[in-house]
Amino acid sequence: MAIPHASAGQTIDVQPLGERLAAAKTVALFKAQDLEVMRLVLLAGRSLPPHQVAGEITILCIEGVLDIALDGRRHVLGAGQLLFLAGGAVHGVTAIEDASALVSIALKR
Amino acid sequence: MAIPHASAGQTIDVQPLGERLAAAKTVALFKAQDLEVMRLVLLAGRSLPPHQVAGEITILCIEGVLDIALDGRRHVLGAGQLLFLAGGAVHGVTAIEDASALVSIALKR
Repeated sequence: MAIPHASAGQTIDVQPLGERLAAAKTVALFKAQDLEVMRLVLLAGRSLPPHQVAGEITILCIEGVLDIALDGRRHVLGAGQLLFLAGGAVHGVTAIEDASALVSIALKR
Repeated sequence: MAIPHASAGQTIDVQPLGERLAAAKTVALFKAQDLEVMRLVLLAGRSLPPHQVAGEITILCIEGVLDIALDGRRHVLGAGQLLFLAGGAVHGVTAIEDASALVSIALKR
């Protein structure tokens, strides 16, 4: 279930969705003062076109396989693999297999 | 293997350590401008006494069970559960079972 803006001290489940993945959507988990965290859901073959955000990002693949295009290179992330992106880094994301990922963004104020 | 300061665009494995957990140590994964990320390793019965850091924190339990004491309440985190802590929140951590967790800290400049 989506928790649009969890409060501090609230436990959030980010286990693999498994069979529920195919019907799931990307959800914001919380947005605080300095950190924003979401679960990205991307089904096989779907992409986020190249984009950038001001703050630093970590992408932790929870399940499935993601291909992150960054600086002219491709980074393939399987479950339990983390990628760090510098602030402003242009990156595209393509799901090789149905995937979900925990995306954490350092907010710029 | 520890990666003291991974560079941007480097994939970092944060899968469960499993049988390697008992001999593992807490390691810094990277420290960037706005984000610091480490893998905390805490064996059953061990604790980090109550402490605080300036920045906001997320604790994602990778394996095992952690008990986080925060604001007079206990939060039990199993694998795949995430807890958000506000900046400056005093918190203690005790491992109920051998555990590792991904700890992300928003750095204050």
